[in-house]
Amino acid sequence: MKVTVTTLELKDKITIASKALAKKSVKPILAGFLFEVKDGNFYICATDLETGVKATVNAAEISGEARFVVPGDVIQKMVKVLPDEITELSLEGDALVISSGSTVFRITTMPADEFPEITPAESGITFEVDTSLLEEMVEKVIFAAAKDEFMRNLNGVFWELHKNLLRLVASDGFRLALAEEQIENEEEASFLLSLKSMKEVQNVLDNTTEPTITVRYDGRRVSLSTNDVETVMRVVDAEFPDYKRVIPETFKTKVVVSRKELRESLKRVMVIASKGSESVKFEIEENVMRLVSKSPDYGEVVDEIEVQKEGEDLVIAFNPKFIEDVLKHIETEEIEMNFVDSTSPCQINPLDISGYLYIVMPIRLA
Amino acid sequence: MKVTVTTLELKDKITIASKALAKKSVKPILAGFLFEVKDGNFYICATDLETGVKATVNAAEISGEARFVVPGDVIQKMVKVLPDEITELSLEGDALVISSGSTVFRITTMPADEFPEITPAESGITFEVDTSLLEEMVEKVIFAAAKDEFMRNLNGVFWELHKNLLRLVASDGFRLALAEEQIENEEEASFLLSLKSMKEVQNVLDNTTEPTITVRYDGRRVSLSTNDVETVMRVVDAEFPDYKRVIPETFKTKVVVSRKELRESLKRVMVIASKGSESVKFEIEENVMRLVSKSPDYGEVVDEIEVQKEGEDLVIAFNPKFIEDVLKHIETEEIEMNFVDSTSPCQINPLDISGYLYIVMPIRLA
Repeated sequence: MKVTVTTLELKDKITIASKALAKKSVKPILAGFLFEVKDGNFYICATDLETGVKATVNAAEISGEARFVVPGDVIQKMVKVLPDEITELSLEGDALVISSGSTVFRITTMPADEFPEITPAESGITFEVDTSLLEEMVEKVIFAAAKDEFMRNLNGVFWELHKNLLRLVASDGFRLALAEEQIENEEEASFLLSLKSMKEVQNVLDNTTEPTITVRYDGRRVSLSTNDVETVMRVVDAEFPDYKRVIPETFKTKVVVSRKELRESLKRVMVIASKGSESVKFEIEENVMRLVSKSPDYGEVVDEIEVQKEGEDLVIAFNPKFIEDVLKHIETEEIEMNFVDSTSPCQINPLDISGYLYIVMPIRLA
Repeated sequence: MKVTVTTLELKDKITIASKALAKKSVKPILAGFLFEVKDGNFYICATDLETGVKATVNAAEISGEARFVVPGDVIQKMVKVLPDEITELSLEGDALVISSGSTVFRITTMPADEFPEITPAESGITFEVDTSLLEEMVEKVIFAAAKDEFMRNLNGVFWELHKNLLRLVASDGFRLALAEEQIENEEEASFLLSLKSMKEVQNVLDNTTEPTITVRYDGRRVSLSTNDVETVMRVVDAEFPDYKRVIPETFKTKVVVSRKELRESLKRVMVIASKGSESVKFEIEENVMRLVSKSPDYGEVVDEIEVQKEGEDLVIAFNPKFIEDVLKHIETEEIEMNFVDSTSPCQINPLDISGYLYIVMPIRLA
């Protein structure tokens, strides 16, 4: 086996595949890259059994056949420091010899027998979506997913396909984020991808220059394909909760407020709220929203901002981080906050933009 | 007590004083700032008993007298988010009321009785030194100090004053850094400042705009003074080792090499060296230095660079991080490496610049 490749191409494909390397390795071999040279092609693969990447390396010269595994962290560090523009790979016994300029690495390889096959979903439904649109949708909801891997049904993003509609939903039980957009699609389907898989999706969307991406779903796996890279993710075998039940249908109080002013006010009251209570009281009156937080040990803070209000006065309390998280993911200058009462979920959405909404559960008034 | 001050000035002086706040607090009160309003002056103080800062706040209006302690972390966060350009401070019972724009904080204060006096050294020797020169000297040696606080005699920087000379030395037992410069001074003296105190020294030098700084030493404490800020540090009561014994007087091999090329070569061999051995063999021949590292599990790397050599051929091994650390702190394009033999300390210094030198102990050849 012999491969001659530009160092940059080798580094790029290693970097793309490295996102699927197993971090805490159940099987040691999954902390490595599979290098496969076959039929004039050179593939670099990695998988942690939940997600997998198969990258095709565009090499100037490929000869022979080989299939072996190399240690992930050493190879990742190595490709960053190779001195020459061109790198040559060959085998010497069970050592992979990497030569670049006046540097020679001899890296011990492992047999590839136990490395799992990384096969994409071959059947199932297929849809195309605008890359930057999907990227935005994911970014707008992913933060609301539960971080705890043991909450399997919430530790991810729920994908819902209807005729000409894609909806993404994430929730950790305390807040929920929803994004929907028109796409060309005929089928009905839904699946849950774990947070780890969703980060892989973001990674794919970040790294492609193609304007649209093809998504395939076969009931068990989801694959995203671009020119040189196939990324496969296993869907989570758990049921996403019936999220529609927490979205209120009518409201009694509506507040329109500058997103920037509310963010700055939150920063101020969080100085005290972060010292234990994690609670901020919102006192909503005619043209004023007063944010108040108290700490038995450190004191209190009162902060007033101007708002436009319709409907009833209201006093309600939130974990300020959840409101701050929502504000970080809205881009309009003004936002709408829609309330039922002090114990019901609050709906926050960008002003005059439909398809995107956030739900935050209140906390008990102290 | 009432103080009116620009929010920026309050934030600046809190930031300066905060560097002396106790991190892991032995006495809870030392995690706070002492606020002292007296004779028309407003001082903010902090100390962890080892270092202390007394900052004079330039306030537009100061009236009354008060002396109390406020919690360090809350105040630090608060000054960063005050909304208006002007902030007013007053006392309401034992609460410090901070008003800025439409924000009001009421912060619980603690009595100041147990807060230690922060007094500068009043007697002792005094010398002046160019601020940027001292900053450079400190930066060139501080990295070589032992990080372990329990190695009291090495966990710091040794200051040596001779007639018209200031020398700084740091060592962790494996490597040593020395910097000396001419200054105007008549007295002989030496003292050891802990790494923590030295970081405080760096902080003072970073934050002053004055071209020279006055250093005072009274046998127990060292003080640095600039316009509004006094910084006092306790010297370490431990003896710095006789460092002159490890500096070789004659050499058998001298290598001149590009600093940049050696740094890049080190990065390459460290890919393997960092996998367990932490050892790189330097094979020095006529015009070549070959760096070799091996790992029983991962393989090996061989890297060659061109050098100019005088004297005998040599094979010697180092922890590559120690050589890399030295190279980061030299600015000349080429460096000199001076060797005695494979078991004696190596001296590294910038080419054609005197007063700065580094010693690195070799490790046993594998």
